[in-house]
Amino acid sequence: MVRWEPGARERLQGAALELFGSQGFDGTTVAEIAARAGLTERTFFRYFADKREVLFTGQDAFERLFFAGLDATGSDEPMTSIGAAIGRAADFFPDEHRPWSRARQQVIDAHEALRERELLKLSSLAAALTRALTDRGVDPTSAALAAETGVTVFRTAFAAWIAPSETRSFPQLQDAVMRRLHALIDAD
Amino acid sequence: MVRWEPGARERLQGAALELFGSQGFDGTTVAEIAARAGLTERTFFRYFADKREVLFTGQDAFERLFFAGLDATGSDEPMTSIGAAIGRAADFFPDEHRPWSRARQQVIDAHEALRERELLKLSSLAAALTRALTDRGVDPTSAALAAETGVTVFRTAFAAWIAPSETRSFPQLQDAVMRRLHALIDAD
Repeated sequence: MVRWEPGARERLQGAALELFGSQGFDGTTVAEIAARAGLTERTFFRYFADKREVLFTGQDAFERLFFAGLDATGSDEPMTSIGAAIGRAADFFPDEHRPWSRARQQVIDAHEALRERELLKLSSLAAALTRALTDRGVDPTSAALAAETGVTVFRTAFAAWIAPSETRSFPQLQDAVMRRLHALIDAD
Repeated sequence: MVRWEPGARERLQGAALELFGSQGFDGTTVAEIAARAGLTERTFFRYFADKREVLFTGQDAFERLFFAGLDATGSDEPMTSIGAAIGRAADFFPDEHRPWSRARQQVIDAHEALRERELLKLSSLAAALTRALTDRGVDPTSAALAAETGVTVFRTAFAAWIAPSETRSFPQLQDAVMRRLHALIDAD
């Protein structure tokens, strides 16, 4: 019989981030994460396939937000559609998640294979958004430019959102970054 | 005593691309490449550290072109500076190299680890261009946006340049892609 552990997922995630931060990702075992959370290894594996998944859980839900945003827009303009996609994805980053995102990013930035995994994920997201636009009849060059530019705006806003003393919300920052991009292109 | 082989590098590259194309990257050995080129394995290793380097040789010279372009511009506008950087990098792709670039890209697209290597190379190029702009006093957000956008324009132009029936030159395509980006942003 499987016992339900209240808040087990969150306790495991919190314990993992603490240990990754203090003793490194490679230097931390699943047994240590479970022990720190006051749970068993067996419970850990009910929630996560491996310790890396603690950092990347929820990615599918995150990516679906982009496509939900894209589907909800009535615009034919590729950049306006992509703006709707990244605007919807901002829902994934409410202010109460900022401390978690900051701690998670420190772990990822300190580990080359995790950084590469994150980059490759964003790259395949841009490729999937490109395909979604060409499926709507956008020419391939415009689709690739809009999708890649949207992911660039998202990544730049995310980096600003987790900066040490930043207090503006994710949507505010993403709007500011998009306006900045417009200004840069207009000045060229 | 080392014997000089006229055109050995080019013969090895040509032989490697043929073999990678017909029997796959993983299915090809250095011994086979050398034999196909009529040379010894020892000669191969005078030119390349391993078979992967046949595909990525010249990358340092390629990346230096971006920075040469950046250094040559007198502009303070980040997008104009990045436009000069990618404009200079176009020198790396004269029309007579197009068949080589097409064949090389087919090999890379067919192999996940090679695709990832190429993506990560472009990502570190964007990071290096971002640093070059912040070193000149550009704020981090504008620097990241301009550098990432420039690399997106470069990649999109490259994809168009190696498309099957494309005949326009790399600089022509890069100008067209940059104009398209302006139009997309203006329409948003």
